[in-house]
Amino acid sequence: MIKIAIDAMGGDFAPEQIIKGVNLAIEKHDDIELVLYGDEKLIKKHLKENSRVNIVHTTDFLDMGVEDPVKEFRTNPNHSLFLAMRSVKEGETDAIVSAGPTQGLVVGGHFILRRIRGMKRVAIAPFIPDFNGRQRILLDSGANVEFKPEHLLDFAIVASIIAKSYLNIEEPKVGLINIGSEKGKGRADDLLAYDLMDENKLINFIGNVEPKEMLLTDCDVLVTDGFTGNVLMKSYEGAIKAFSTAIKTEVENSFKVKMGALLMKSAFNNIKENTNAEKVGGAILVGVDGILIKAHGSSNDFAFYNAIRQARSMAKADIITKIKKAIEETHKND
Amino acid sequence: MIKIAIDAMGGDFAPEQIIKGVNLAIEKHDDIELVLYGDEKLIKKHLKENSRVNIVHTTDFLDMGVEDPVKEFRTNPNHSLFLAMRSVKEGETDAIVSAGPTQGLVVGGHFILRRIRGMKRVAIAPFIPDFNGRQRILLDSGANVEFKPEHLLDFAIVASIIAKSYLNIEEPKVGLINIGSEKGKGRADDLLAYDLMDENKLINFIGNVEPKEMLLTDCDVLVTDGFTGNVLMKSYEGAIKAFSTAIKTEVENSFKVKMGALLMKSAFNNIKENTNAEKVGGAILVGVDGILIKAHGSSNDFAFYNAIRQARSMAKADIITKIKKAIEETHKND
Repeated sequence: MIKIAIDAMGGDFAPEQIIKGVNLAIEKHDDIELVLYGDEKLIKKHLKENSRVNIVHTTDFLDMGVEDPVKEFRTNPNHSLFLAMRSVKEGETDAIVSAGPTQGLVVGGHFILRRIRGMKRVAIAPFIPDFNGRQRILLDSGANVEFKPEHLLDFAIVASIIAKSYLNIEEPKVGLINIGSEKGKGRADDLLAYDLMDENKLINFIGNVEPKEMLLTDCDVLVTDGFTGNVLMKSYEGAIKAFSTAIKTEVENSFKVKMGALLMKSAFNNIKENTNAEKVGGAILVGVDGILIKAHGSSNDFAFYNAIRQARSMAKADIITKIKKAIEETHKND
Repeated sequence: MIKIAIDAMGGDFAPEQIIKGVNLAIEKHDDIELVLYGDEKLIKKHLKENSRVNIVHTTDFLDMGVEDPVKEFRTNPNHSLFLAMRSVKEGETDAIVSAGPTQGLVVGGHFILRRIRGMKRVAIAPFIPDFNGRQRILLDSGANVEFKPEHLLDFAIVASIIAKSYLNIEEPKVGLINIGSEKGKGRADDLLAYDLMDENKLINFIGNVEPKEMLLTDCDVLVTDGFTGNVLMKSYEGAIKAFSTAIKTEVENSFKVKMGALLMKSAFNNIKENTNAEKVGGAILVGVDGILIKAHGSSNDFAFYNAIRQARSMAKADIITKIKKAIEETHKND
């Protein structure tokens, strides 16, 4: 039985959508037990009772717009997110899923789960679906804004293990996000990171990947610093949104175009379905000693269910043990 | 009469498309004289003779894939690009347009035109059209990969002058590309750049702009380092291309969708036309003492014509004098 801790109160639509996601997960997987942290009364309003679901009651939870999560952590250990994390730390559960505020998860990850020995930084690693539904791991997408080359190597090693265990890719290809495909491009730290990854035997490094190739490259893992990763991801989001809006405006302005759009509906639906982030689930906080899945803040039940599904798969694959072994191997001579 | 130096041999489709662009420019603007640098025999094959076009013959030119433009500069002063730049330096012409290799332009800009006194760095500044055809200046988009906060301030000042003189915007709004819209987000150098721009009286700084807002923000000038700017621009390019490809694949797979696409043809054409980079022209190399327009390497005649049109407008507006004055004002107490 896999036990997963759920932050029932984190997310824009918590607890309702979170609990509905829990109901879905319990229905679909009979090898999981879920422990929900949050307000028992509110949770019970939406929960389908099941012997595999337990509630740990707390009325405190992090606000989605929390400004100083470190202070929150220091002053209140009973926030639903922190209680859930502690259960992983203490071995009561095997993973945690939360749609709470990212910085809250990063802070809790640091102070409660703690970094894996040898990891100097953590990273947020989303699974980016392309227009064919294929997923690539991008990290760091925003946990840290400053970086050193050796952090990127650690990220590449950990993400390769996740790609292998979770995405079932035999020998995951790793690329360094860079402004040119040739070796020698980029900032001084990118050049150093290139060499570190190129020399490392634990990963299958194939070189630089340009931002415009993010959805086309045959890489499975894309590595960069958190500032660049965030710019990359949000640029794709913005471009696709702006393009979609431009199409919608054209549709509104012409009857003929509107007819065309109706005929193209299945095409637009297919595209939307393939890139559906809800289907993908959440991002993983890489580098902490425990499986910590960050579901999107605006998760609905289906998105949150998929984040639970991810946590289950990763727990079954025992990724943390594998990650610890690889990081220890990498830093044994430090 | 505005005199513009043309690198007739730079670009993937030089000299044919370059000369055809020259023909167009001469036809459309009777207040310009063009001096073409390149192989006279090849140029004359495509040139419509006109008293306002002169040729300075040279058989040497930079290869588009040039690997060491500094070495080229040191060993051969007769490359068409360098001769053209020298004519601006010596006051024989008012601006230069080239579709040659970017790094060749940056090197020539540094060594021949030289940086404006006070400018510590140069920047490549493209004019990015959104889906409504509105242009925003993004800089640096790739001249430098490392940066200091004060470089970004200089870029903001210069680009504001260009937005005012060339895009005719009364009081151009300046934004700092950042991973969050609130003050306090970003890398240490972004925080410092924020304060520098916020305090400066020559620009209208409105704060951070997230990457996803690039085509939506009411800013006219978007400032960041060359690594980030390049990632931003290329991510948008890649996202829109991947989205378009996904639509095309759907169209190929279904007759009904194909019919829909036919009805939507005008819409797709409108969108393409609004974002047509050929219509925009080229990017300006900001910070050098002379108007240097970098047309896209794959420019056709229409794109190159528009780069000439840009050079003409900027020369007429006497932007270099304005830029020098503003930069001098900014650095008078350095």
